[in-house]
Amino acid sequence: MDLPNLRWWGWGTLDQTYSLENQPHFWPTLRARLDLPDAPEPRPAVPLEQIKLPPSRLDHPVVASLQRLLGEEAVRTDAQVRVEHAVGKAYRDLVRLRAGKVTHPPDAVVYPADEGQVAATLAWAADRDIAVIPFGGGSSVHGGLEPEPGDRPTVTMDLARLAQVIAVDRTSRTARIQAGARGPALESALNAQGFTLGHFPRSFEFSTLGGWIATRSAGQACSGYGTIKELTEAVRLVSPTGIMETRNAPASTAGPDLLHVLLGSEGALGVITEATMRIRACPAVQDYRGLLFHSLEDGLAALQELNHHGPRPTVVCLSDAAETAGCALLSRERRGLRGLTGRVADLYLTWRKHSLTNGSCLMILGFDGEPQAVERRWQQALAVCQDHGGLSLGQAIGESWKLERFSHPYLRDTLLEAGVMVDAIKTSASWSNLLSLHREMTTAIRAAIPATGGGPGYVMTRVCHVHEWGASLSTTFLGRQVPGREVEQWWEVVRAAMEAVEANGGTAATYHGISQDQSPWPARQVGPLATRIQRQVKQALDPLSIMNPGVTAHL
Amino acid sequence: MDLPNLRWWGWGTLDQTYSLENQPHFWPTLRARLDLPDAPEPRPAVPLEQIKLPPSRLDHPVVASLQRLLGEEAVRTDAQVRVEHAVGKAYRDLVRLRAGKVTHPPDAVVYPADEGQVAATLAWAADRDIAVIPFGGGSSVHGGLEPEPGDRPTVTMDLARLAQVIAVDRTSRTARIQAGARGPALESALNAQGFTLGHFPRSFEFSTLGGWIATRSAGQACSGYGTIKELTEAVRLVSPTGIMETRNAPASTAGPDLLHVLLGSEGALGVITEATMRIRACPAVQDYRGLLFHSLEDGLAALQELNHHGPRPTVVCLSDAAETAGCALLSRERRGLRGLTGRVADLYLTWRKHSLTNGSCLMILGFDGEPQAVERRWQQALAVCQDHGGLSLGQAIGESWKLERFSHPYLRDTLLEAGVMVDAIKTSASWSNLLSLHREMTTAIRAAIPATGGGPGYVMTRVCHVHEWGASLSTTFLGRQVPGREVEQWWEVVRAAMEAVEANGGTAATYHGISQDQSPWPARQVGPLATRIQRQVKQALDPLSIMNPGVTAHL
Repeated sequence: MDLPNLRWWGWGTLDQTYSLENQPHFWPTLRARLDLPDAPEPRPAVPLEQIKLPPSRLDHPVVASLQRLLGEEAVRTDAQVRVEHAVGKAYRDLVRLRAGKVTHPPDAVVYPADEGQVAATLAWAADRDIAVIPFGGGSSVHGGLEPEPGDRPTVTMDLARLAQVIAVDRTSRTARIQAGARGPALESALNAQGFTLGHFPRSFEFSTLGGWIATRSAGQACSGYGTIKELTEAVRLVSPTGIMETRNAPASTAGPDLLHVLLGSEGALGVITEATMRIRACPAVQDYRGLLFHSLEDGLAALQELNHHGPRPTVVCLSDAAETAGCALLSRERRGLRGLTGRVADLYLTWRKHSLTNGSCLMILGFDGEPQAVERRWQQALAVCQDHGGLSLGQAIGESWKLERFSHPYLRDTLLEAGVMVDAIKTSASWSNLLSLHREMTTAIRAAIPATGGGPGYVMTRVCHVHEWGASLSTTFLGRQVPGREVEQWWEVVRAAMEAVEANGGTAATYHGISQDQSPWPARQVGPLATRIQRQVKQALDPLSIMNPGVTAHL
Repeated sequence: MDLPNLRWWGWGTLDQTYSLENQPHFWPTLRARLDLPDAPEPRPAVPLEQIKLPPSRLDHPVVASLQRLLGEEAVRTDAQVRVEHAVGKAYRDLVRLRAGKVTHPPDAVVYPADEGQVAATLAWAADRDIAVIPFGGGSSVHGGLEPEPGDRPTVTMDLARLAQVIAVDRTSRTARIQAGARGPALESALNAQGFTLGHFPRSFEFSTLGGWIATRSAGQACSGYGTIKELTEAVRLVSPTGIMETRNAPASTAGPDLLHVLLGSEGALGVITEATMRIRACPAVQDYRGLLFHSLEDGLAALQELNHHGPRPTVVCLSDAAETAGCALLSRERRGLRGLTGRVADLYLTWRKHSLTNGSCLMILGFDGEPQAVERRWQQALAVCQDHGGLSLGQAIGESWKLERFSHPYLRDTLLEAGVMVDAIKTSASWSNLLSLHREMTTAIRAAIPATGGGPGYVMTRVCHVHEWGASLSTTFLGRQVPGREVEQWWEVVRAAMEAVEANGGTAATYHGISQDQSPWPARQVGPLATRIQRQVKQALDPLSIMNPGVTAHL
């Protein structure tokens, strides 16, 4: 039921890795930048069998009663499954996993075969005061899968067996899809009928529809297709008090649209079992290209104009100067950025007053659609970009971006093995706040890393999910790990970043499973009345509070 | 503070009326169709001074205490103000007003000058167990403004003094606007800075921003600009338990987006005092034109193609054959449809196998934007429409539609005076349900009108608010009033329509202030768990239930 060959201590599967072959400059440059030791001690992950797991708190009769409901195969308590479901894939999760620190894994993992079994499991758990955590692809980076410490047993519910595309309505362009469907399977089932959901988060290869809905996910093509909240027409949720199905009712005045109460509910209200999704025809062409701007300001001005006057791009990824230099270092496709790092190209860029490593900003821009329309949009878009000093680098870089779009989480594993702290913070703001937010966040993180003893550090940002009224930033930071206090060090950096976000009118994804004292932002962002509403909603659907308790610090 | 010269028993102001001059065919045709008496008894509205209002239940000391909070001028208990705030502008409201049946008007009407006075009034009311009904433009057609019958006193809070555009962020393209701002004032304040909200409901001239948000309003240009829920970035609400401000946080995982709990909240959670709205640059061109299709199916196929493959129109209004015939009867602009009712035009239409009165369907299609882009979109759109047998009628009809877009509610008053029952039902559905919904609803209403004793009746529908996954229908029905039981008759027709809507997968706007026995659809559409959530949300913000009690039958 689980994907075979999972890299339990890192990203993805064991047969894949981020190759740094033919990248002779990568390690020397990174070592110099981050002030890493020349010959670092290798830090492999602790072998699974050496991890000392607390024993399952579900005794044999209790497990047997669960097995009577779901079948023997569908209830597992072995160490591997418990470890694989203990945490998500955040930096702090991987640091702990690699060190073998799995202090509160679930006591059992269940794999319901249908909605009836989901409901039966919730009733069984409520009856015994056992917590239940819904689990999709396991790629959460905000602590959404971690059992609460304490005495209460926890069962994690893996939705891997609810993974079908149930029905496609070709006329209305909607598809009913089960929540456990993973990105690639879901897309290929839709593609086979000529459709796409158009949702491609970085975790696409492993994350699931239910996970995207529960976390209000945004994907790489969301500038064109919308984020998951725009793509979701209706959701079906099994809660401890019954089944709830929202119905999209644009013309209804019968009260509020409760779909948005389930979007982002993080498993705290029940188990999302299926959703009706809005789909589109597969695009005939996906024409993605690279451009180079003299500054982040210029690139943002071009994006603003494209989003206000059109043509609005499907895919946008604008790197600041620091990330552009990082991309240049990582580029290996001969047709990609690498083609621009040769001497002749270098002379050309210099002549155009650009430098990949000294101030220029790389933008990936993409249009999906019919060939003629895409060609016309590109002509218009190039004219807009040229008005802002943009230099077209052609399609090779876009193709290279497409090929590598899901591969960077693998690189993280390589970096962790070399003792590098690496994480990304996502935030979003209106156009008028965006530049100051970028500046202040970069400054705050740059100051925080050395303060933790993490060396000079490196901070780089990309602008993604661009819309008419603003955009999102994804800021990656790297530093030298402080052995023995990796998690504390990471949190000091994140805290500095979050303070800068809040002070500059941004809204940031927050970290669950960290106490409200430590992480006051979610409650402050939401406010006391909204917190009260959320508590009341929880009370309506999960009065005994068995669903993912503690997932939101302020609830 | 109120608009002067209000037509308290009908729509709009006394200086305006829907002229039927130069329309010699209108009354004879209508009389024949609806089987109206040749010389109907005139049914003027009862004069205001003849209405027997129940006395205000707020005694002098109580009113005086309110006046100390808000100022003497801002608290009114005179008959005219109480009648003007007693109901909305639904058919059943106007029938009762015209007959002088104002059985439970508010006991006082207050006009707070700022948010502090709003909060103070709620505290004052909670302290005395007095209900409070927020009031914007007073144009509700679903009973959202009507005090609950019973012993509890009610104060209606008119937001006319909170009507400013507070700030425009030109970079982010957002505007903070107070809830009491009416359509024309709001638009001209934005226009003066080069922007538009793009929200034009039929009630535009009188309705307010707060009303649009509280009722999840859709406008005539919502195919292009979005409905109010897409146009709202954040809402500020004064509830009996405090002030709540939502913050749009597309990247936040800090739980659900509670904005959607306030959108459509109908005054039952608190008073919306302001909102941050998404605005756009004023379009340089608004090019609206008419087209004629051989059938509703053909018109819908063209709309579907436009919305799936582009160019997506800003304005869409596709009339079925019955409404097209109605439009032809009403047309009076020489440059409009009237130009097509002459003999030469008639011959041309016949040659093209069209007939305005026998099966053809009129579509108004509009594109807003820069001249070149609009021209290009029109060329593409005309090609799509021609593929589906669409015949272009040119811009004159589009201009005529623009001129008359807000005038039809005035015609309703004229019809009521002549003893005609007239109302519209709005519903929405996915593309695959749309045609069967149209057919079944039309059949149901056509059967219901004669069954009430209302004569043959007339039923006509337009398709509006078209989007990628479906569209909305607005179905108007006319019949002969049954004197003395106009409201009961109307409800029998509406009930038949609502049953057809529910049976065919539509979602319909429902009627507040009608008991759940009589109107089971809202509760059934929402479901028991969603109802429980709504009750809990109400409990969080309005634990004493002073806000618009009874506005939703199932709460």
